Amino acid sequence: MARPENDDFLRALLREPTTRTPVWLMRQAGRYLPEYCETRKRAGSFLELCKTPSLACEVTLQPLARYDLDAAILFSDILTIPDAMGLGLYFSDGEGPKFERPLREEWAIRDLAAPDPYDHLRYVLDAVAEIRRALNNSVPLIGFSGSPFTLACYMVEGGSSDDFRTVKTMLYDRPDLLHRVLEVNAEAVTRYLNAQIECGVQAVQIFDTWGGALSHAAFREFSLAYIERVIEGLTKTRDGERVPCIVFTKGGGQWLEAIAACGCDAVGLDWTTHLGEARHRVGEKVALQGNMDPIALFASPEAVAREATRVLESFGGGMTGHVFNLGHGIHQHTPPDNVAVLVETVHRYVRK
Amino acid sequence: MARPENDDFLRALLREPTTRTPVWLMRQAGRYLPEYCETRKRAGSFLELCKTPSLACEVTLQPLARYDLDAAILFSDILTIPDAMGLGLYFSDGEGPKFERPLREEWAIRDLAAPDPYDHLRYVLDAVAEIRRALNNSVPLIGFSGSPFTLACYMVEGGSSDDFRTVKTMLYDRPDLLHRVLEVNAEAVTRYLNAQIECGVQAVQIFDTWGGALSHAAFREFSLAYIERVIEGLTKTRDGERVPCIVFTKGGGQWLEAIAACGCDAVGLDWTTHLGEARHRVGEKVALQGNMDPIALFASPEAVAREATRVLESFGGGMTGHVFNLGHGIHQHTPPDNVAVLVETVHRYVRK
Repeated sequence: MARPENDDFLRALLREPTTRTPVWLMRQAGRYLPEYCETRKRAGSFLELCKTPSLACEVTLQPLARYDLDAAILFSDILTIPDAMGLGLYFSDGEGPKFERPLREEWAIRDLAAPDPYDHLRYVLDAVAEIRRALNNSVPLIGFSGSPFTLACYMVEGGSSDDFRTVKTMLYDRPDLLHRVLEVNAEAVTRYLNAQIECGVQAVQIFDTWGGALSHAAFREFSLAYIERVIEGLTKTRDGERVPCIVFTKGGGQWLEAIAACGCDAVGLDWTTHLGEARHRVGEKVALQGNMDPIALFASPEAVAREATRVLESFGGGMTGHVFNLGHGIHQHTPPDNVAVLVETVHRYVRK
Repeated sequence: MARPENDDFLRALLREPTTRTPVWLMRQAGRYLPEYCETRKRAGSFLELCKTPSLACEVTLQPLARYDLDAAILFSDILTIPDAMGLGLYFSDGEGPKFERPLREEWAIRDLAAPDPYDHLRYVLDAVAEIRRALNNSVPLIGFSGSPFTLACYMVEGGSSDDFRTVKTMLYDRPDLLHRVLEVNAEAVTRYLNAQIECGVQAVQIFDTWGGALSHAAFREFSLAYIERVIEGLTKTRDGERVPCIVFTKGGGQWLEAIAACGCDAVGLDWTTHLGEARHRVGEKVALQGNMDPIALFASPEAVAREATRVLESFGGGMTGHVFNLGHGIHQHTPPDNVAVLVETVHRYVRK
């Protein structure tokens, strides 16, 4: 497994110099692309799309055909693990993901077990292999998983939530039960990411989408500690190449030093953090990924270029350790032409 | 205007020593109290409740009858200003506040003017006077307003939003227009808070509920700069007593140093920030208010007491400069008995 032709993304994650700033976008294969909507319609449903490797491969490649992106990311859902645990994932229109059997009873928590990815998540691994073949070593492929705590939020709430009342009540009332869920999740995430690495992904990202909803103390105890445990168990190199790991905690800017010390190679940041200050806080420890406000993509092409440049400038001089990205997933109503402007602006930018 | 009998809240805001930690709760007069729901039913609607001084006074006092709170807060809505500007505030069930005439056209923005609070917001000032009489100088009364940017969010979006797409697109595309809205809002908020002070409030809080949705750079330019302008224009003392000002930016923990330098006496913090670290970062500059996760009030009484104690301990030793509060408004489904446990725990706590 040699490095891909364009290895700027991997180099930036490993804090090696690059000639330009690499860029990819969270949720780059998604609903803002008309060709994605076409494929999804053909698939019949979002879950069918995730579970059919040839279709998952097709949508993974779509943004790379349009834009000069420096990495592909496996098309999948963060809830494949709880689905494989038997919680019964389904999508109800306009309400997001739901589980038929939310995890709330003590007996169900005691019975919870980490699924074997080669068994219940085979479709994801097949997609990884198929995408790698299709990419033909042009750019690296990123694998991913939700963090143990983020998965637990969905599992206990039974879907999305705006206050996380059920899972947080468990956290405050029965921390022992939540710790048990998180232990199983950490094992499941470790196995899942290692299987993705085994099948060909060249970097992994852990999406800690809801860690930022926790208090300072609870974040460390219930989210970061389990991310650390996952990273400890990860296959770090394959065929002599480092497989870098990115941790993205939405709303985690305040805890940057702690996150940077969790064993990851890079930290993803949302748009509330100043990249230059972040760099100063973490020093040489990790690379940084981010962090343009996804809503800036709704402005005029000139404003998109201006905001992207501001983000690039905020990182400061030197060409090592910055992967450009949005501070959150791209919005479904984003005008696709503005993404072309963004990618071009990032690639043309010359650091002082 | 002598200080109230119980002046712990004012003393803590001014960083004077107190014998116990003062406590009040954001949205303490609200739907979690059955007596509030009764009064609201009698009023006919939420807006009628806000606009009838005797009823606003009644609900302001309700939590003080139940709990040993150290301050009362004027019962009102943060959207009274845009309503007085003629945007047509209404509440549609289950969807939150809405405006009949959202502020989007350039001509409407040019025509926008700061209302005279003695004219269009008379009902708020009458409520302030009536509450002060009813409190009979037992505890201080807090006045409040939304921040210029937070008001602009509702005005431009036309209601609540989860991505602030409309107002942020204006920010990126036509910053000049948004600045014009914010200038008018800053003037309106200054006049409004000064009128509240004139009529008797003894401290004010600026709720910057949505400042945390902005990027690091945009927060300074579009939210904090206008909060600073408001504070510059505030009546700082009345009858020889300082009228302290609290700034609460939800999600603003990363920007604490900048917020603490805006001219306020105290900074409100949500639960993601460690109080002791915050104290270290701001030094002697300001008092701190906060910051228990409101969802902790859904746990058992023992867990509520445990979490409140953890928050108190996180502030560290010494009895100056901490006002206990939640990190956000109290949740409408909070069990009222847990609030009693919380207030008692805070008052009993002896700092090392």
